[in-house]
Amino acid sequence: MTIPAGFLDRLHQLLGAEAVLTQSEDTERYRREERGLLISHCDAVVRPADTEAVAAVVKACAKARVPIVALGGNTGLVGGGVASGGIILSTERLNRILEIDALNHTMLVEAGCILADIQRAAEERDCFFPLSLGAEGSCRIGGNISTNAGGVGVLRYGNTRELVMGLEVVLPDGQVWSRLNSLRKDNTGYDLKHLFIGAEGTLGIVTKAVLKLFPRPRAKVTLMAALDDLDGVLALFDHVRAACGDRLTAFEMIPELGIDLVTRHIQGTRDPFDRRHPWYVLLELTSPRAGEELRKEVEAAMGDAFEKDIVADAVFAESETQGRALWKLREEIPAAQTREGGSIKHDVSVPVSRTTDFVRAASEAVRAAMPGVRPCPFGHIGDGNIHFNLTQPVGADKAAFIGRWEEFNRIVHDLVKTYAGSISAEHGIGLIKRDELEHYAAPLDVELMRRVKRALDPDNIMNPGKIFIP
Amino acid sequence: MTIPAGFLDRLHQLLGAEAVLTQSEDTERYRREERGLLISHCDAVVRPADTEAVAAVVKACAKARVPIVALGGNTGLVGGGVASGGIILSTERLNRILEIDALNHTMLVEAGCILADIQRAAEERDCFFPLSLGAEGSCRIGGNISTNAGGVGVLRYGNTRELVMGLEVVLPDGQVWSRLNSLRKDNTGYDLKHLFIGAEGTLGIVTKAVLKLFPRPRAKVTLMAALDDLDGVLALFDHVRAACGDRLTAFEMIPELGIDLVTRHIQGTRDPFDRRHPWYVLLELTSPRAGEELRKEVEAAMGDAFEKDIVADAVFAESETQGRALWKLREEIPAAQTREGGSIKHDVSVPVSRTTDFVRAASEAVRAAMPGVRPCPFGHIGDGNIHFNLTQPVGADKAAFIGRWEEFNRIVHDLVKTYAGSISAEHGIGLIKRDELEHYAAPLDVELMRRVKRALDPDNIMNPGKIFIP
Repeated sequence: MTIPAGFLDRLHQLLGAEAVLTQSEDTERYRREERGLLISHCDAVVRPADTEAVAAVVKACAKARVPIVALGGNTGLVGGGVASGGIILSTERLNRILEIDALNHTMLVEAGCILADIQRAAEERDCFFPLSLGAEGSCRIGGNISTNAGGVGVLRYGNTRELVMGLEVVLPDGQVWSRLNSLRKDNTGYDLKHLFIGAEGTLGIVTKAVLKLFPRPRAKVTLMAALDDLDGVLALFDHVRAACGDRLTAFEMIPELGIDLVTRHIQGTRDPFDRRHPWYVLLELTSPRAGEELRKEVEAAMGDAFEKDIVADAVFAESETQGRALWKLREEIPAAQTREGGSIKHDVSVPVSRTTDFVRAASEAVRAAMPGVRPCPFGHIGDGNIHFNLTQPVGADKAAFIGRWEEFNRIVHDLVKTYAGSISAEHGIGLIKRDELEHYAAPLDVELMRRVKRALDPDNIMNPGKIFIP
Repeated sequence: MTIPAGFLDRLHQLLGAEAVLTQSEDTERYRREERGLLISHCDAVVRPADTEAVAAVVKACAKARVPIVALGGNTGLVGGGVASGGIILSTERLNRILEIDALNHTMLVEAGCILADIQRAAEERDCFFPLSLGAEGSCRIGGNISTNAGGVGVLRYGNTRELVMGLEVVLPDGQVWSRLNSLRKDNTGYDLKHLFIGAEGTLGIVTKAVLKLFPRPRAKVTLMAALDDLDGVLALFDHVRAACGDRLTAFEMIPELGIDLVTRHIQGTRDPFDRRHPWYVLLELTSPRAGEELRKEVEAAMGDAFEKDIVADAVFAESETQGRALWKLREEIPAAQTREGGSIKHDVSVPVSRTTDFVRAASEAVRAAMPGVRPCPFGHIGDGNIHFNLTQPVGADKAAFIGRWEEFNRIVHDLVKTYAGSISAEHGIGLIKRDELEHYAAPLDVELMRRVKRALDPDNIMNPGKIFIP
């Protein structure tokens, strides 16, 4: 794919030369993704500074049939922002927080705002924006919206989809669709914003959004529970949810292997318990009320859990530092796996009630396929979202292990299907999971997506080839 | 519009004669809406008992180009279920609750289940389905989903849209699209269910749904606050939300006129305060924890509100009976207005932060247009949703007053637009608000809706003419 003659001149006219990058060294950081798995090919990277400029670029592309890949913080994990021809449109200059209405609990932002900046701006107005994930220091909200990002707050606050009240989108023909609604109720026809949320940029480019804010938590309790059997994990979840309801904001499962690997490979970490247990859960609870009430509530709930023999042991964080140390045991699992050798990863979800059965069945299945393989299933079990990661057998050849990725994909994803789950819980489809989606989705699902795509982007210029082949 | 020769025979073949009603006296209850404002014209009412039968009917209709209006409990307020030719498909026999997964907090139901039956079934499993509205004893969940129903729980739990995890829909060509997902995270392409939610049956017929359940509230506090000025209403909302967060499940504004009319016209009601105040708020707070903690929390928050001079007086319900009596003062406002004479109604929303400004501006505007008119703005102010109702001037001619409905529509809806609000907060568009939508919506909004409609229903057989003219 090459762009038509004169097209770059047209972009220069529209944006000014400094906003159009064509030299390989200038465009590399937009083309190369963090892990180095994929690289974009494109004729230019453009950096428009406002919606009008985005619209002008898209209009020019539409006229010339030049494909556009919109790119936020370039932190995606499935190749959704990878171009194969045409231009990359970076949203990084659309980075203004335009308005905070603390009383309405809403915030109007441009799509290129960095997530952490949004969190901070909300906090300064004594509000809370709950979307939180590993990449929050560099990912941009337009990307979060286009991938319906998940993260650690989903249990209490929902996915990104639930946090978006209004959108402005530049459509594939360059028209600006603006529904920057900040209404909690609005039943005036189809709710089109949901089409663009999670569409990975295939239906248009998100340029602005109205986000939903919440009361700022003023009390927080972080604790880790140790359990002697897997079924206890769900029993504990059910128990704490019933006792504390919405106070529960995180419920993260960690297997013994996770604690083994993290404490072995990651400096400054230690097992907080006297002895090793087969399963652990990291819990976080918050309340908008300051004071000791929340702690007492959680202690009472955990006391009951002890009496019912659901948990074997528990440690409460007595300070922010201790809380961070407990979180580190969860967050460093992928890094520790990498240091241990090869790891094969799956981001899947099943109904919460079936998570432990799924973990058991999938662990058995992968062990049957490769004796010695070490399953390390961890993650947001309160959302039914399991990062079903495999660590190579001790002493195995890393490359040979990684070479069996697709075989393990098939084993794990087949089981996901059996358990009525999803092969992509939070990362999306992009390029990397496109064939898997084609394999597992009902044909009518993909057919409807194609029909919607054709209705909005008949010339297929918006992030072509992502999610499905149109 | 008449149906083709032999079409009724075809329906008989498909469903059996007893499921096809053609006699006027048999079809009347499906054709006449409660208020008697509109009446359907149709050649038959069909009553399929399962998804396969719905699909067979739709296939036959698609082949013969016969329009279909799907009908649930027939409780809609905007004529969305009114047919003008073709057939009405009643979902009332699709009324099975198929599965409750208490641990996953989900429930699989057929579209014709009555809302109150769903609430009860959830409660029996110690769970809670929070959708609650006046018509809950007769409305059906498929209708709630197709209109994205609101009601009294929106502040805490969201609209119906937020309560639906999966859907099964018979598409306009008779294919069955089944995404009966019960996953809290699933990023595998476009989230198509949101197209069907709130589409008022114009894109397909909802036949099954997976609903989201919540922990059952075990403590409840109901109270009414009296305020001496309108701005206090928002100050109180902000204060209680900050202090109690998600405990706050309802925050309903009532004007002095509302209390006047209800206590004058509705038997068994009384003003709970020693003197009349210009504004009142009915608050309800719930907690999944039984015991006195919630009451103490609310008392502390209200104590602070007194000290800050936000509220003038407050009464707490000391029993379920007292709680119901307070709710009656809110719920009987429309009935009391009817007894007082003519009333002109608007179901609008604005950002929560602008509700009181809107109420002031709209009240002034309608008074300027008709001296003596009595605005009675009440409703879900915590959602920004105001039922901006007008009661006729004392002694005015009712018919003459009602005759000015459209003039008042224009005044109120123009202001709604100025305040970045919605002309239909929870009732939808249907037939009755279609011209208003055309008048106020951005042309691109309606154009996108038309494109989606054409992509899914190219022959325009699904509830044609509702929301917009395709």
